[in-house]
Amino acid sequence: MDGFKTAEQMAAEQREISVAEFFEKNRHLLGFDNPSKSVLTVVKEAIDNSLDACEEAGILPEITIKIRQLETDDRFKISVQDNGPGMPAKQIPMAFGKLLYGSKFYKMRQSRGQQGIGISAALLYSQLTTGKPATIRSRTDAKHKIVEFQLRMNTAKNEPTVVKEGEYEGSFPDTGVYVEMELEGKYRKGRQSVDEFIKQTAVANPVAKIVYYAPDGEKVTYSRATDKLPKKAKSILPHPHGVELGVFERMSKNTKSRTVTAFLSNDFSRVSSQSAREFCKLSKVSPDTDPKKLEPHDIEKLWRTIQAAKIMKPPLDCLSPIGEDVLEKAIKKDLNAEFVAAITRPPEVYRGNPFGIEVCIGYGGGLPLNEAGEMIRIANRVPLLYEPSSCAIMKAMKTIDWGHYKLQHENKLPFGPIVVLVHLYSTWIPYTSESKEAVDAYPEILKEIRLALQDCLRKIGKYLAGQRRRQMESKRQSLFEKYIPEFAYTMEKLTGEKKEKIETDLKKLLHKEGLKVEEDVGKEQRKE
Amino acid sequence: MDGFKTAEQMAAEQREISVAEFFEKNRHLLGFDNPSKSVLTVVKEAIDNSLDACEEAGILPEITIKIRQLETDDRFKISVQDNGPGMPAKQIPMAFGKLLYGSKFYKMRQSRGQQGIGISAALLYSQLTTGKPATIRSRTDAKHKIVEFQLRMNTAKNEPTVVKEGEYEGSFPDTGVYVEMELEGKYRKGRQSVDEFIKQTAVANPVAKIVYYAPDGEKVTYSRATDKLPKKAKSILPHPHGVELGVFERMSKNTKSRTVTAFLSNDFSRVSSQSAREFCKLSKVSPDTDPKKLEPHDIEKLWRTIQAAKIMKPPLDCLSPIGEDVLEKAIKKDLNAEFVAAITRPPEVYRGNPFGIEVCIGYGGGLPLNEAGEMIRIANRVPLLYEPSSCAIMKAMKTIDWGHYKLQHENKLPFGPIVVLVHLYSTWIPYTSESKEAVDAYPEILKEIRLALQDCLRKIGKYLAGQRRRQMESKRQSLFEKYIPEFAYTMEKLTGEKKEKIETDLKKLLHKEGLKVEEDVGKEQRKE
Repeated sequence: MDGFKTAEQMAAEQREISVAEFFEKNRHLLGFDNPSKSVLTVVKEAIDNSLDACEEAGILPEITIKIRQLETDDRFKISVQDNGPGMPAKQIPMAFGKLLYGSKFYKMRQSRGQQGIGISAALLYSQLTTGKPATIRSRTDAKHKIVEFQLRMNTAKNEPTVVKEGEYEGSFPDTGVYVEMELEGKYRKGRQSVDEFIKQTAVANPVAKIVYYAPDGEKVTYSRATDKLPKKAKSILPHPHGVELGVFERMSKNTKSRTVTAFLSNDFSRVSSQSAREFCKLSKVSPDTDPKKLEPHDIEKLWRTIQAAKIMKPPLDCLSPIGEDVLEKAIKKDLNAEFVAAITRPPEVYRGNPFGIEVCIGYGGGLPLNEAGEMIRIANRVPLLYEPSSCAIMKAMKTIDWGHYKLQHENKLPFGPIVVLVHLYSTWIPYTSESKEAVDAYPEILKEIRLALQDCLRKIGKYLAGQRRRQMESKRQSLFEKYIPEFAYTMEKLTGEKKEKIETDLKKLLHKEGLKVEEDVGKEQRKE
Repeated sequence: MDGFKTAEQMAAEQREISVAEFFEKNRHLLGFDNPSKSVLTVVKEAIDNSLDACEEAGILPEITIKIRQLETDDRFKISVQDNGPGMPAKQIPMAFGKLLYGSKFYKMRQSRGQQGIGISAALLYSQLTTGKPATIRSRTDAKHKIVEFQLRMNTAKNEPTVVKEGEYEGSFPDTGVYVEMELEGKYRKGRQSVDEFIKQTAVANPVAKIVYYAPDGEKVTYSRATDKLPKKAKSILPHPHGVELGVFERMSKNTKSRTVTAFLSNDFSRVSSQSAREFCKLSKVSPDTDPKKLEPHDIEKLWRTIQAAKIMKPPLDCLSPIGEDVLEKAIKKDLNAEFVAAITRPPEVYRGNPFGIEVCIGYGGGLPLNEAGEMIRIANRVPLLYEPSSCAIMKAMKTIDWGHYKLQHENKLPFGPIVVLVHLYSTWIPYTSESKEAVDAYPEILKEIRLALQDCLRKIGKYLAGQRRRQMESKRQSLFEKYIPEFAYTMEKLTGEKKEKIETDLKKLLHKEGLKVEEDVGKEQRKE
């Protein structure tokens, strides 16, 4: 058996590998590298789906998350109930029990999920560590019954297996989905905990009401900071500058258009028939050719011509930011900051993909004084808790001269009662890995984050300068007040005026016109 | 189109996602994040396959790699020719044009590739960036003709497309495979370059002759440091402590054994029939039950019992280290070190997987004096060039007190004319990501790397102490020699003996018995 092999023997051993078994063996790719992160990932995938579905259906989200510890220390039952549109029964097995299945992968639209892997990966992990099926309930209409499934995944085939299908009789919202899974995990408090993730999710989704039952019995309720649903994100066509040669070629083979000009102007954004004809001319391709019949050589010439041409930016109104007012409200409410400032920058483009940056900074109030500031990274309304050092958001933060804005800092990041939230929203978030924990550092993205931070910091700087001025003023006042009796006594000696009268006059004067201090800090900041 | 949607409308949009399109969109997962790394990754995948095939067939490998820059700056043609066993024609399309296809995924054996993704991912990237098919040639017998394929991948189906199939008439080894791909890339020299990768590959595979034509026209030949093929790595059965509940359950459903005892003792390593019966008794499962009919509850009880039991380590002779002698020779030859020391530690186990650590340190000679030392990380004979900071090997290196061994150091790593190679070999390398650039920091692995480094450093320390002693000695000698005339003159005055005679005697004495210096450094090292 262990002798040397011939080419034929080796060939005979080759076979197809199941995609589910591949991800089972490589589950760190999907965010299941350790027990505490696994708890977080399951919660995250379920919430992502609930919020995306509510947004698409135009429903104000109300989500209840329960995490219970079971008999053994390392086993948890997680459930997430939403009031979204629900899911039709026939769709449930595939949506939860098959990897690489979904509606978002082929769309260019801002959404939380983008790959069709998340919740099925959670089911796979649950099954791997506990052998238990997942329970899914759903109702799509208040008049209908509630369907209940018990699901497993056939990993060899990457297909769902329905263990049980029936009706559920308990209480349930008019419409919605309920997901319940058991898994091996660990529950910890702190900066990368599931508690922190849920808090940040509430901040990034101020339209959601979130109720959270932690494993230690604590119940936390995050109420809505707004009742207004965010502007709906729109699907757009790909921009020619974001399409690689290989994808361009495939699109030319799969298009419904019958001429090259129609293909270019119908299948891409920002290409008019006129510029399509111009591209054909420059590449010496007849504009009426059937795109399916283009030779590889012509496709490449066409593609190179288009890449070299100046083309209008993709439409940017397809994106949906959280919004300055709503962000400020959320940070004030959920993090108890005294002063907040937010900036939503106008959208920009990286590699043909529209994206935008929002920053909200909160200061003072209930924020802890003697700790590093809290840095909140959000991508398409989903908080990122792991891998900060490889993330564009953190990298941009570390280029900021915090001292310039009179902020305490340590290791290039702010220290003290401050929270800095950065939200990147885009039709395609360039995550550094499939576990979606960090954003790739495209120069365009870094630049926008820096500009947004600086915008916001100028406001904070002004506030801090004002605060400092008020402190200084009150210090001078109290100093002056302390010397009034002495001063009045001397004046009495010199002028003969009654010292009580002088004291009263001086005090009146002092409290009428506060001493003035230059707003030096505010002025300096305009220089950066 | 952009109004709110119902549950049914959303469900209608869901569909299956192609695994090839998934990896195309997420190609950073497979090592194609940037143009210079992409060049390296293609070369690496082709070499991995060539070396694995030669090893399996018992052939001394001879590999020729050519990288040529094409008309445009960013386009390269890469070819790799080997003298391996070749691949039968009918197997070629699937092996090169389908992701998740191969022979190594389901085996527990030390090999370079382990996932069945590598070379097909290279083809996918080549096609994506240039639209060109890949060329594959093969011959499995000197008497046969050479087959030539031009291959593409149908990404929507994850299936190969044969563009052309024919014969090749040019020169070719008796047996072997030739791979040629065009791709968008970048060529750079330096620490993470393809040049460096090939050099390190030669060091880690001293049995291979490697000829490399760089894009700048330079030709480098790495000759063999040994003619002895490494010991063949053997496949083993999974160890019960490395199997998760979900996998255990699946194995119980797919087994050919007809009783639980047979299942446990046939499908796992280190479980005897006797201990299998013992496990059944402890879990209250009848030992003669058909394992396919076990209830989930019983499976879990059985699994928990086994996890809690003390079981002998898996067989460790299935692994194949490079070997101390061969490593020392390679480092001396390819890196031109003056002194080398190597250690191959006996294998250990992490999570049921056997693994071993080898360390080889080279010092002095042609190694650069005023640079940071060179750290070479190798996993199953494949060099790792990226992501050092997240790699267990680098993490272990940074815990070493280099100063203790009288080595210069900077940022916790050695500085000066030193090269440190660490080789981790295992039936399953726990990479932190699918691009296989860093090894996960299991405590067992960290510990073994530290021990191997310390072992090796003691030898280096002794050598350095010896070197220092010799230097000190010769310094004292020359100092003494300098004063001999003066001393002889004084002696002549005092004793009346001829000073010439005294000088000659003293010189004779000096060169006969070198002055002795304590080997203090060597002693100290035994303390760590």
